[in-house]
Amino acid sequence: MRQTTTEAFAALADLLGDRFTTAQAIRDQHAQSESHVISGPPDAVAFPRSTEEVSILLRIAHEHHIPVVGWGAGSSLEGHALAAHGGITVNFSQMAQLLEVRPEDMLVRVQPGITREALNTELRATGLFFPVDPGANASLGGMAATRASGTTAVRYGTMRDAVLALEVVLADGTVIRTGTAAPKSSAGYDLTALIVGSEGTLALITELTLRLQGQPEAVSAAVCAFPDMTSAVDCVIETIQSGVPMARIEFLDPAAVAACNAYSGQALPAAPHLLVEFHGSAAGVAEQAERFGEIAADQGCSGFQWAERAEDRAALWKMRHNAYPACLASRPNATSVITDVCVPISRLAEAVEETAADIAASPISGPILGHVGDGNFHAILLVEKGNAAEEHEAMRLAGRMAERALRLGGTVTGEHGIGMGKLGYMEAEHGAGWAVMGAVKRALDPRGILNPGKLLPPVQ
Amino acid sequence: MRQTTTEAFAALADLLGDRFTTAQAIRDQHAQSESHVISGPPDAVAFPRSTEEVSILLRIAHEHHIPVVGWGAGSSLEGHALAAHGGITVNFSQMAQLLEVRPEDMLVRVQPGITREALNTELRATGLFFPVDPGANASLGGMAATRASGTTAVRYGTMRDAVLALEVVLADGTVIRTGTAAPKSSAGYDLTALIVGSEGTLALITELTLRLQGQPEAVSAAVCAFPDMTSAVDCVIETIQSGVPMARIEFLDPAAVAACNAYSGQALPAAPHLLVEFHGSAAGVAEQAERFGEIAADQGCSGFQWAERAEDRAALWKMRHNAYPACLASRPNATSVITDVCVPISRLAEAVEETAADIAASPISGPILGHVGDGNFHAILLVEKGNAAEEHEAMRLAGRMAERALRLGGTVTGEHGIGMGKLGYMEAEHGAGWAVMGAVKRALDPRGILNPGKLLPPVQ
Repeated sequence: MRQTTTEAFAALADLLGDRFTTAQAIRDQHAQSESHVISGPPDAVAFPRSTEEVSILLRIAHEHHIPVVGWGAGSSLEGHALAAHGGITVNFSQMAQLLEVRPEDMLVRVQPGITREALNTELRATGLFFPVDPGANASLGGMAATRASGTTAVRYGTMRDAVLALEVVLADGTVIRTGTAAPKSSAGYDLTALIVGSEGTLALITELTLRLQGQPEAVSAAVCAFPDMTSAVDCVIETIQSGVPMARIEFLDPAAVAACNAYSGQALPAAPHLLVEFHGSAAGVAEQAERFGEIAADQGCSGFQWAERAEDRAALWKMRHNAYPACLASRPNATSVITDVCVPISRLAEAVEETAADIAASPISGPILGHVGDGNFHAILLVEKGNAAEEHEAMRLAGRMAERALRLGGTVTGEHGIGMGKLGYMEAEHGAGWAVMGAVKRALDPRGILNPGKLLPPVQ
Repeated sequence: MRQTTTEAFAALADLLGDRFTTAQAIRDQHAQSESHVISGPPDAVAFPRSTEEVSILLRIAHEHHIPVVGWGAGSSLEGHALAAHGGITVNFSQMAQLLEVRPEDMLVRVQPGITREALNTELRATGLFFPVDPGANASLGGMAATRASGTTAVRYGTMRDAVLALEVVLADGTVIRTGTAAPKSSAGYDLTALIVGSEGTLALITELTLRLQGQPEAVSAAVCAFPDMTSAVDCVIETIQSGVPMARIEFLDPAAVAACNAYSGQALPAAPHLLVEFHGSAAGVAEQAERFGEIAADQGCSGFQWAERAEDRAALWKMRHNAYPACLASRPNATSVITDVCVPISRLAEAVEETAADIAASPISGPILGHVGDGNFHAILLVEKGNAAEEHEAMRLAGRMAERALRLGGTVTGEHGIGMGKLGYMEAEHGAGWAVMGAVKRALDPRGILNPGKLLPPVQ
């Protein structure tokens, strides 16, 4: 360790006491990743309890040119929270308070470490809920940093829409507030939107003001099977285009269905499925469900199973949220390359079918599933642990998915983000715009201490 | 004119022929403003026809350090399009094509000079429409640059939500594309959101990809009177909080109503009014209207007038859109200071009532109206042309509105933008965040040629 780092770590130990640690076990915990992206551990881990502590920490790190990486729940999929260049990981688990609920403004103020499930548990009695649902019980700070979305984005939007205002700490320790509690503003650059999705490379988020939604009066959900992939995807496209305000519309291919059956004790037929949910007034939900049913029937849909009771719906969505572990469990000794892309809805059928054909022609398997209502789908490419040839094949398939998405006018990631895993596609997607991101980065973090190695062009 | 400018103008005349002019009459036209904000004319006006021409123009201007200001329809209200530092105004009226309609993706690609009314005329047969409606027949490029919104934002969002992707030209002539045609992305910084609302200070917009909405199956509108301002505003708050998906919910105070009566030949009672519109299925609209009616009745609403026929609705919204000229016409030889603020919905009643009391206590009059469903309202402060004392008083009242909005947790402008008119409130609203905007500006436009004198901190 360099002399200057030793000094910095001593100052941080003074600041945080045993909430600053270089213990190997803690450092190793922060080298864990949900995905195939790997990195060594950070040199130290900090557990701040306040914005002021984060500010002082960054001031010290800035002075000593030490990398700083934010850590929420560790559930990101492209290695965002890994300390690619060492340095300090800032774990926000002790900044996880619900600070204020403003039911009359349908807003909440939270600290970044609170998870979406914890937030919704706290909101239960208010008649409101936070809609963004990426499946994993992610932290809100991490969800904002990666511009997460998930099953309900088709109706309620992504973190881009859900974050109204932020408090963030810049690389040099300066604390700024972006946005206000007003529903809209045209007062200057949209710094909130600039920070959301910046993956911890521009600032650390210390507080979020989030939009809530009213709990719907009525909810209805269903699962239904289709004769083939094309008819299921066409049903999605037609439903979206017809303007039915779907709350959720999720696709599972037969391999994903088989994995979910085995893992969650379901007995769905071995066919492509859609899982759908409707929110609204009782009359509105009935009307939506009827329209969807007509469109689905035209596409040869069979075996509609309605989940009217809350516990049946909970079981349905638990099955969906467990699709990832279910797929992993479907092959012994497996790990996965999990990847997502997003395409215009008009190109969804092509994108899904070409991807399925590509995987079918490969020696490895990879269930396809996703939030198809907004053109977003995932492949969970299953590889034997330690089998380099299979991992290479999975990366090749994932790369072809990304290239296919760009060719069809889409994006290399709808919701997982860039991190380290998708750096190689940024130039193809953004061209000269990638350098503009680099210029913004240098303007806000000239020493490059915030999450180096992620999202941005290599420093020249 | 400096030697270097002479050279640059000669090069631009070569490039654009008679579409580059220094004629006094054309320059003077581009010193016109809809509002009280004034400036001298630009030194020249250019009428490019392609992205390539804009790129070459900026390359030349960049080389010669000449200011460049974009001009759409000239309808902005804070002097955004005025050449505060001289230079070249780029008039986009010859880049006003509808480039592509993608009905299956509910998207359209347009050039920046097309106006929202022209776009909607072209879309009429598609079953789709572009919802953002600031009243004025603004250009889409200008609406994106100022993050405009308007009467329908409460349901369909602002330009922040409507712009999916952009093609822009940076200060040095570099052309970049931000965003894709996919409905969402988490691939890097949200440059689209950074450009939207940047008021031409970061780039010139040469193409927009915009989200469309389905034309609702059923539409119903109504106007209704309330016994006092508090009951009207409380009705708005309760309606929004109850989750009724209002398409429009507009407030007019008695002075605005009187002006509209006189200007548009209506005979509304001299009371605070709400103008509302419902979009949905026939059953959905009926259900929404019934709920709204109940809430309004509880607030003492009377004299509901329904506009079921399209021509009646058109007359109603024409009256609303003409409220600005109507207010101007309500006082002989008047001009106005028109200003907007936006507050959290829970503070709307306070904000409107304190503003009304402030204006009532002043020697000048100022009707209040606005898109209150998202906490946004306007005062049209009427001053005698050339009366400096009245103008000073209007600016004082506008300043107090801005300060009040900040005190109540809101923003100094919901939709009009900063331009030159509201520069003085940026520090109060953003604190250290304003300097961050300045850092982003310098990173993208180090020579400061793009719309100098607007939005940003003074150059040190």
